Amino acid sequence: MTNLYDQYLKTRAYTERICKPLMIEDYIPQPADFVSPPKWHLAHTSWFFEELVLKPSMDGYQIFHPDFSFLFNSYYNSLGRRTQRANRGDLSRPTVEEVYKYRQYVDKYMKDFILSKKVDRTVAETIILGINHEQQHQELLITDLKYTLSLNPLFPVYQKNFSLVDDKPGTVSNYIDVRAGNYMIGPEGEGFTYDNEHERHKVYLNNFKIASELVTNGEYLDFIKVGGYKEFNYWHEEAISWLNDNEITIPLYWHHIDDRWFQYSLQGLVELDMLAPLAHISYYEANAYAFWKGARLPTEEEWEVASSKFDWGKRWEWTQSAYLPYPGFKIVEGAIGEYNGKFMVNQKVLRGSSNATYPGHSRITYRNFFHPHLRWQLTGIRLAKDAE
Amino acid sequence: MTNLYDQYLKTRAYTERICKPLMIEDYIPQPADFVSPPKWHLAHTSWFFEELVLKPSMDGYQIFHPDFSFLFNSYYNSLGRRTQRANRGDLSRPTVEEVYKYRQYVDKYMKDFILSKKVDRTVAETIILGINHEQQHQELLITDLKYTLSLNPLFPVYQKNFSLVDDKPGTVSNYIDVRAGNYMIGPEGEGFTYDNEHERHKVYLNNFKIASELVTNGEYLDFIKVGGYKEFNYWHEEAISWLNDNEITIPLYWHHIDDRWFQYSLQGLVELDMLAPLAHISYYEANAYAFWKGARLPTEEEWEVASSKFDWGKRWEWTQSAYLPYPGFKIVEGAIGEYNGKFMVNQKVLRGSSNATYPGHSRITYRNFFHPHLRWQLTGIRLAKDAE
Amino acid sequence: MTNLYDQYLKTRAYTERICKPLMIEDYIPQPADFVSPPKWHLAHTSWFFEELVLKPSMDGYQIFHPDFSFLFNSYYNSLGRRTQRANRGDLSRPTVEEVYKYRQYVDKYMKDFILSKKVDRTVAETIILGINHEQQHQELLITDLKYTLSLNPLFPVYQKNFSLVDDKPGTVSNYIDVRAGNYMIGPEGEGFTYDNEHERHKVYLNNFKIASELVTNGEYLDFIKVGGYKEFNYWHEEAISWLNDNEITIPLYWHHIDDRWFQYSLQGLVELDMLAPLAHISYYEANAYAFWKGARLPTEEEWEVASSKFDWGKRWEWTQSAYLPYPGFKIVEGAIGEYNGKFMVNQKVLRGSSNATYPGHSRITYRNFFHPHLRWQLTGIRLAKDAE
Amino acid sequence: MTNLYDQYLKTRAYTERICKPLMIEDYIPQPADFVSPPKWHLAHTSWFFEELVLKPSMDGYQIFHPDFSFLFNSYYNSLGRRTQRANRGDLSRPTVEEVYKYRQYVDKYMKDFILSKKVDRTVAETIILGINHEQQHQELLITDLKYTLSLNPLFPVYQKNFSLVDDKPGTVSNYIDVRAGNYMIGPEGEGFTYDNEHERHKVYLNNFKIASELVTNGEYLDFIKVGGYKEFNYWHEEAISWLNDNEITIPLYWHHIDDRWFQYSLQGLVELDMLAPLAHISYYEANAYAFWKGARLPTEEEWEVASSKFDWGKRWEWTQSAYLPYPGFKIVEGAIGEYNGKFMVNQKVLRGSSNATYPGHSRITYRNFFHPHLRWQLTGIRLAKDAE
Repeated sequence: MTNLYDQYLKTRAYTERICKPLMIEDYIPQPADFVSPPKWHLAHTSWFFEELVLKPSMDGYQIFHPDFSFLFNSYYNSLGRRTQRANRGDLSRPTVEEVYKYRQYVDKYMKDFILSKKVDRTVAETIILGINHEQQHQELLITDLKYTLSLNPLFPVYQKNFSLVDDKPGTVSNYIDVRAGNYMIGPEGEGFTYDNEHERHKVYLNNFKIASELVTNGEYLDFIKVGGYKEFNYWHEEAISWLNDNEITIPLYWHHIDDRWFQYSLQGLVELDMLAPLAHISYYEANAYAFWKGARLPTEEEWEVASSKFDWGKRWEWTQSAYLPYPGFKIVEGAIGEYNGKFMVNQKVLRGSSNATYPGHSRITYRNFFHPHLRWQLTGIRLAKDAE
Repeated sequence: MTNLYDQYLKTRAYTERICKPLMIEDYIPQPADFVSPPKWHLAHTSWFFEELVLKPSMDGYQIFHPDFSFLFNSYYNSLGRRTQRANRGDLSRPTVEEVYKYRQYVDKYMKDFILSKKVDRTVAETIILGINHEQQHQELLITDLKYTLSLNPLFPVYQKNFSLVDDKPGTVSNYIDVRAGNYMIGPEGEGFTYDNEHERHKVYLNNFKIASELVTNGEYLDFIKVGGYKEFNYWHEEAISWLNDNEITIPLYWHHIDDRWFQYSLQGLVELDMLAPLAHISYYEANAYAFWKGARLPTEEEWEVASSKFDWGKRWEWTQSAYLPYPGFKIVEGAIGEYNGKFMVNQKVLRGSSNATYPGHSRITYRNFFHPHLRWQLTGIRLAKDAE
Repeated sequence: MTNLYDQYLKTRAYTERICKPLMIEDYIPQPADFVSPPKWHLAHTSWFFEELVLKPSMDGYQIFHPDFSFLFNSYYNSLGRRTQRANRGDLSRPTVEEVYKYRQYVDKYMKDFILSKKVDRTVAETIILGINHEQQHQELLITDLKYTLSLNPLFPVYQKNFSLVDDKPGTVSNYIDVRAGNYMIGPEGEGFTYDNEHERHKVYLNNFKIASELVTNGEYLDFIKVGGYKEFNYWHEEAISWLNDNEITIPLYWHHIDDRWFQYSLQGLVELDMLAPLAHISYYEANAYAFWKGARLPTEEEWEVASSKFDWGKRWEWTQSAYLPYPGFKIVEGAIGEYNGKFMVNQKVLRGSSNATYPGHSRITYRNFFHPHLRWQLTGIRLAKDAE
Repeated sequence: MTNLYDQYLKTRAYTERICKPLMIEDYIPQPADFVSPPKWHLAHTSWFFEELVLKPSMDGYQIFHPDFSFLFNSYYNSLGRRTQRANRGDLSRPTVEEVYKYRQYVDKYMKDFILSKKVDRTVAETIILGINHEQQHQELLITDLKYTLSLNPLFPVYQKNFSLVDDKPGTVSNYIDVRAGNYMIGPEGEGFTYDNEHERHKVYLNNFKIASELVTNGEYLDFIKVGGYKEFNYWHEEAISWLNDNEITIPLYWHHIDDRWFQYSLQGLVELDMLAPLAHISYYEANAYAFWKGARLPTEEEWEVASSKFDWGKRWEWTQSAYLPYPGFKIVEGAIGEYNGKFMVNQKVLRGSSNATYPGHSRITYRNFFHPHLRWQLTGIRLAKDAE
């Protein structure tokens, strides 16, 4: 179990490293329903280990605080009441210091427990799930924080030298051909995977083409300049409402000041790098851009089959696919069963990973998912086409 | 073209036959965004022929009224401004009589035009599209009207002997086995089809089972009685919000009075027929019911492949599939291109047809689609299962 | 009682005369919470006599329809459930014809009852209240109808020669001086009055000045032209939100087309008469205009004391006064007690009467009241000033 | 000017004393539009002195930070853009430490300036206004903080021995008679007063009676126990919507647990003291209670005239009066003119002061004002009656 404990330790430490540059004040605000305060992420990831590992499996474990179970539950309905998602930013207490104590408390018992030789296979799997769960929250920590700071007219700097933009210019994109046929989708062999990646199954794909590179800021700016946001033919019907209701004319975090283009980043406001891959766009925008280009987004199966032929990992790549259960998908009994299945409606699959993803967290069968209008993740575009 | 004109005439007449039992007052209200007043359906289906056939293709055609193009456009953005969808019920004028005159005017010119031998293949296709478009609106006419009348505390009777409930009790359902393999999806050969049914393409399906019968009211009532609406584990996360926000505990139009079950129908309030197929449920409810039964909804491809093995046509059957473009789908240039593609996000595919569908309008490749929370159509459930 | 019956008859007939030019379709829509469909006004005014006179006081009276009590109640909470105010436009049934039958039915029994010599003083007072109530609804009938038709892009004509605009140009306004002192407010002597006009009581007023004429369209246009709607210093804090949220820059029904000014009227769209008294402005607009002019609105007591010195009756005149109980005001027991008192918060008093008011319905002690943001009544401005 | 500086110093110090028990986290959240975070109060009260005193009047003054003027403006429209009121809780930066530095910076220059002998009468008046402004914000600091902490399921303790409840039981209330006549209203003589207390003017009052004591928690509980919240006859029409929409059945901060009554206080959750004066009720509740008691609320003029005959100062006492300009009220030019006049619509006057008011801040002519539905201030009830 030493290896398991190493993994645990490394992941827990990385979460706290992300929070190093923060002031106590930064741990509190929640400016939108879809973001959570850093304090909540720190506590919730600990709550997962307390609630699903220590409480049920470690003899004589005493919980840290009787109310934390309620305060730091997220959507696990089977584990009792929870704070309304929208109200997480209203809670000044427990203090940040207490939350760090909570982490230390959980870490101490998790250490004892993991190294105790009492961890059976099922519990070990739950711990690995908890580690992956915390890695997901690391990415949310970064993107939520970016969103919160971006609303501040002072454009605060999280860290001077912290960049999620890839500064090496991409090479020119070309289309890679993939041949029609039956392909297997989903993970093979050992190694952690989420329930939503199963069952591994066969699909038939037509001939298709997929771009070798992501769309860049500069390429997307062309779309803006030709009036792409105003040409309703490029957009889904509900995208038009979304554009109008939210007065959207550019990607999230972009600023057009005195005829120059900037973007808010965790380094503060910086000039837009035209060669860097585009980020922070909704599915609607991705789809409209592709339509304008005479192309389309790939399906998730196309992406998976072709993924060995291109580099990925800078942006979460919107696919055309809806987030749905694979053939043979089974929902596990109990709280862990709530992990993924209950979100399988009205969301879109994103494949790959981003500069903000914990290294090694993703894989080619990984299925990320968000509602089509959301933009605060590092989302980008890879084009595809039917073969002529 | 006589055949085309016959089809035109028959469809146009059927629309007016649906309206026969209405009082003038019934033509006006719009109690929800998703329904349209009968007056609007009558005018909009005529507008389609005027705007997309007569105006562009008939020499010297004079439009009936300069403002109708604006008033009775629906979502065709490329054809200019349109009344906000939510405000159709605010318009008392033009009167119902004027709208019928509009229909007659359009019919007169359509007759002259179709029988004039000047209709080329492209225009003929647009006319056939217009006929199918009107048939779709006939179903909406009925379901919209039902919705409006259902809100009236007087429970008005549309027609004493008008029933959309199938009164022959279904036989006991059993599961039909379908073998894994590559199958072709989409229409073959001649005959009108919508753009969204193309391209015909190959898919691979696993072994699966599909129910021979639809779920009945009585079977669904069992789900209610065991507390199915309160057991959050059966529901999607966003379904739980939908249930809570709308205080939903039973299907649309059901009433529980003095321990007996009734449903509002176009015959007025009638006792619930326990053997009749269930109707007026959302995708969320369909999915939760299937989950409780240890089953699932079929995918649209499974439904299409298996459809020759069961009777269909009483209810629009929710599938698990999201409404997405098929491989090779192309959006046509111009207004007709707006027909289907722009709705391909956040909606679910329904297959089959209902008792309210114009006879012959549907086919096994037909893809109907609605948002998952909507219930005012005659939607039902056919269960499926993975093979053991 | 002949005189009472004459009054009854005359009022009832006038209501129907207002509806003469309507098409059946016009009786149905309710485009905003604050308006009611004509059908509802016709039924509700009859319901008042049925519910508060015939049912409790006429021996053996049979109600017309058991559900009408629920459908056509307005805000009388003590008389049971009622249709939600916002949903009146969703009801196509009962038909207009049935509602007219309801009126005739009530009229027949009211005739028998009033002429029967069985009407004691209390009941007679309720009948007189019912007559005044119907006169109020006559004005609402006109203003609600105007609001509904105004939203129709066809700008429908209610009646070619029907004008609520006073076409005789007003004379130039001058300020009338009123001397400080104690004055009596409220009605003296016999004659019908509302509960909210009582108790007659003494107030002390400072010296003040009040304008001899109402503000004209032309004068108000000057305010628009100098940018009055954009100068926040002229407006209440909550008025600024109201302007922004509703994108308000001109009075209701005004249209600026090709550099000319029009207003929607019951004669259709007509050119704005610069010499006619301004109408359809909110309290916020009235107050901002007065502030710009270095003046203010009169209090209701000032208006009442000065009213013998100027002509009034063309516009409801906003006063500075909040709608509050007079000293000694008592709420009557039972449903009639709900008439006025329950609205005495967050509303403003308007004095006078308008071109749409039933002749003789108002008087100098009459207290009309609306929320400060509402504009669909014929509301206008008379300026006042402190004495120098 | 030493006296002025003493006043300044004392007020500034008291603000910081209120914040002593706070953790940094407590300075951030804003759980409702009507509350502001402590950090904002600290900065905004300093901003007032910088913006309205130092910037315009002190030679060579350099502002502390160019963006603070925008961030910490409240409603002063004439001074440029401002953060949306609802978004104050989204701002983690500037940090609390920086805000305290801002206060020290302003204090240093204010000291130099006030003691410099360059303060003329007009500037001195602005400084006194700033001191009174800060005293108002001290009360808001306490009540806002209470509101925020009250939403936390942990019921945090601000300070163990901090009580805003008066623990000396009140004596039994009796009615004091006041004779009819003309009275003068508004301040006489020297001493700071707000613009809204002017002009001093004459009013005529009828004979009336006013209670010697405030309504107690125990007395109000009787109203709850007889079903007062469900008896619609006691409530204004719009109060009924307010009760229903917000599911209100008891005063703010009350909790009914295991058949005992508690209230959240800044000492945490404590048992309800039945003899203490009621607090945290809306105008609607005050009015309904008075109606049930066969009494009414006093007008602000009655309160002022009678105030010498009873003790006041524990609760802000709702009056029946709307917040309106007095006869002769003048709005001052410039930003200071925005102080009070722009709120004179749809609000109610409260008289007296509360346990949370800075000692000496209020006086018998002081006019506090809030919207009728708000409850987070220490608002209470003193009954009045017409003389028989």
